[in-house]
Amino acid sequence: MIRGSTITSIISSHMNKQLILVKRPEGMPEADTWNLETNEIPSIADGQFLVKQHYISLDPAMRGWMRDAKSYVPPIPIGDVMRAGSAGEVIASKHPNYQVGDFVSGWGGVQQYAVFDGSNSFKVDPNLVPLPVYIGTLGMPGMTAYFGILEVGALKEGEVVLVSGGAGAVGSIVGQIAKIKGCRVVGIAGGPEKCRYMKEELGFDGAIDYKSENMYEAIARECPEGIDVFFDNVGGEILDAALAFIRLNARIVICGAISQYNNRDDIRGPKNYLSLLVNRGTMKGMVVTDYVKDWAKAGQQMGMWMAQGKLKSREDIYEGIENFHDTFKRLFTGEKRGKLVLKVLED
Amino acid sequence: MIRGSTITSIISSHMNKQLILVKRPEGMPEADTWNLETNEIPSIADGQFLVKQHYISLDPAMRGWMRDAKSYVPPIPIGDVMRAGSAGEVIASKHPNYQVGDFVSGWGGVQQYAVFDGSNSFKVDPNLVPLPVYIGTLGMPGMTAYFGILEVGALKEGEVVLVSGGAGAVGSIVGQIAKIKGCRVVGIAGGPEKCRYMKEELGFDGAIDYKSENMYEAIARECPEGIDVFFDNVGGEILDAALAFIRLNARIVICGAISQYNNRDDIRGPKNYLSLLVNRGTMKGMVVTDYVKDWAKAGQQMGMWMAQGKLKSREDIYEGIENFHDTFKRLFTGEKRGKLVLKVLED
Repeated sequence: MIRGSTITSIISSHMNKQLILVKRPEGMPEADTWNLETNEIPSIADGQFLVKQHYISLDPAMRGWMRDAKSYVPPIPIGDVMRAGSAGEVIASKHPNYQVGDFVSGWGGVQQYAVFDGSNSFKVDPNLVPLPVYIGTLGMPGMTAYFGILEVGALKEGEVVLVSGGAGAVGSIVGQIAKIKGCRVVGIAGGPEKCRYMKEELGFDGAIDYKSENMYEAIARECPEGIDVFFDNVGGEILDAALAFIRLNARIVICGAISQYNNRDDIRGPKNYLSLLVNRGTMKGMVVTDYVKDWAKAGQQMGMWMAQGKLKSREDIYEGIENFHDTFKRLFTGEKRGKLVLKVLED
Repeated sequence: MIRGSTITSIISSHMNKQLILVKRPEGMPEADTWNLETNEIPSIADGQFLVKQHYISLDPAMRGWMRDAKSYVPPIPIGDVMRAGSAGEVIASKHPNYQVGDFVSGWGGVQQYAVFDGSNSFKVDPNLVPLPVYIGTLGMPGMTAYFGILEVGALKEGEVVLVSGGAGAVGSIVGQIAKIKGCRVVGIAGGPEKCRYMKEELGFDGAIDYKSENMYEAIARECPEGIDVFFDNVGGEILDAALAFIRLNARIVICGAISQYNNRDDIRGPKNYLSLLVNRGTMKGMVVTDYVKDWAKAGQQMGMWMAQGKLKSREDIYEGIENFHDTFKRLFTGEKRGKLVLKVLED
């Protein structure tokens, strides 16, 4: 642990690598969307603290934040550090509630050192679970899953739940929570390894491989009595097919549409949306930050489930801030196993 | 009034013209979709009564009932009388609750005489409002409007309501109820006459002519602060545009999609559906028959509003069962003024 006046000399021997957004991409972002800069480590003012970041969270939502369009958060300005969730250690503080040596999770961006003011971060304990879990299962993706399936999806025991992106950071937690709540759970993912993972490791009742199966036939096979809740991270053809199988009073939780985020043209609307009419279904969008006042309570519940072995967390960790672009692409190619994380800490 | 043993001799001098569904149309139904047959007037068994039908209701939903697909009601079988709401007079009865001379509204189908058993009809009083109103504003379209905007739309005072098909049987009632409830109401319809009707006669705050205006520009003009409730009867481009203007926690009531009913290919999905995510919006389908236990109460409320001059009803009545096809087409061309009704009674 580093304290007091020694801090300045030690950190001054380091610099802060920062990934700057330099243009708005069309389609899948190329490497030149960002510029990696090396700048001075920023100083802190009263009420602030400095975090040496260990891990950066990579999430599909990042693609939306790069778009110059009205959304639930303002777009990342050109010239700003790329927005990202993160976890790291406090190494200097002029904030009464954060001490050097505290670990925090927050919105640190894709950089090695970040200044916080306490408004957008919370303390975490890496002795309970590894630090990357706090930006995954116990962070934004986990909270999205928790409130998405329980509040927006209004899940009831014994229902049939279908989840797309079922092996991913959000979907894997959605399915496990639904299992804990006594539902039949079917996951959709790409490739046999992810399907095996969902069934054998996560305990899902069924798995559908969207890369090799006809979606309509596969849903009919795995959900012969239809779907009560569809939790959608993917959109496109998968949403079309799921709509065709909803039961009376079904709920569709629109969490994301990763299949559509890099479209150059219009996104594809769900052509079977009139199934909502026939089946009195509800399609509802969600943004996890709406539930922030209940995050702590949800985190305790999720932590307990993890401790009881009922909830498994898997992180896929890559290293080096200079590898951001290659790692980012894995969000959209699906070449990842669980929550995608980039370690930016250099020893 | 005709009673007792005289009935048989009198009605035997008439025959029953019935419109039979003879094939499943592709696209817009042609005249040969149906066959007009002249058959004996049916006899009634115990528990049944015979209605001489005066008016047949023409509704966009009819197009869906002709399709051989799972829906909220079974498809009309080939060879059956075309399904339709209707209103007429009881001319013979072996049912304890229905007497000769009673007027009823129910599911009589496109024919001149229909047998009922009391399970799908209710008595009406043509002295209170003209008989066609009972298959319009006080019938299925009116009930759809009432429960759609108040229950599914969960309308609150002071909200902004946009309604497509705003001059039609359902939309005109939706908008008027929203005005009664203290909302700002904007209607979408085709052509200047319907726009004038919505503003000047129905009291809507704004009108959009989808035939001559750019939908995005027009909604931005009429709903500068966005939309709280969109009641959609139309689908297609209008739904796309409305989604782009929804406010936080908006509700979209999916009542129909008349722009899509005669598509030969896939229907068009709402390409802006991710606006539901950004704005935490809800899109919910409805079918009016779910609310049948509350129809009587709603009918009393609507009747009171009509008596107070707050709710206007307009019917566009054509004559002759042989003109069914020409009249039916008006549902989709928009060449009608208010609730479309066919008089099948012959003097």
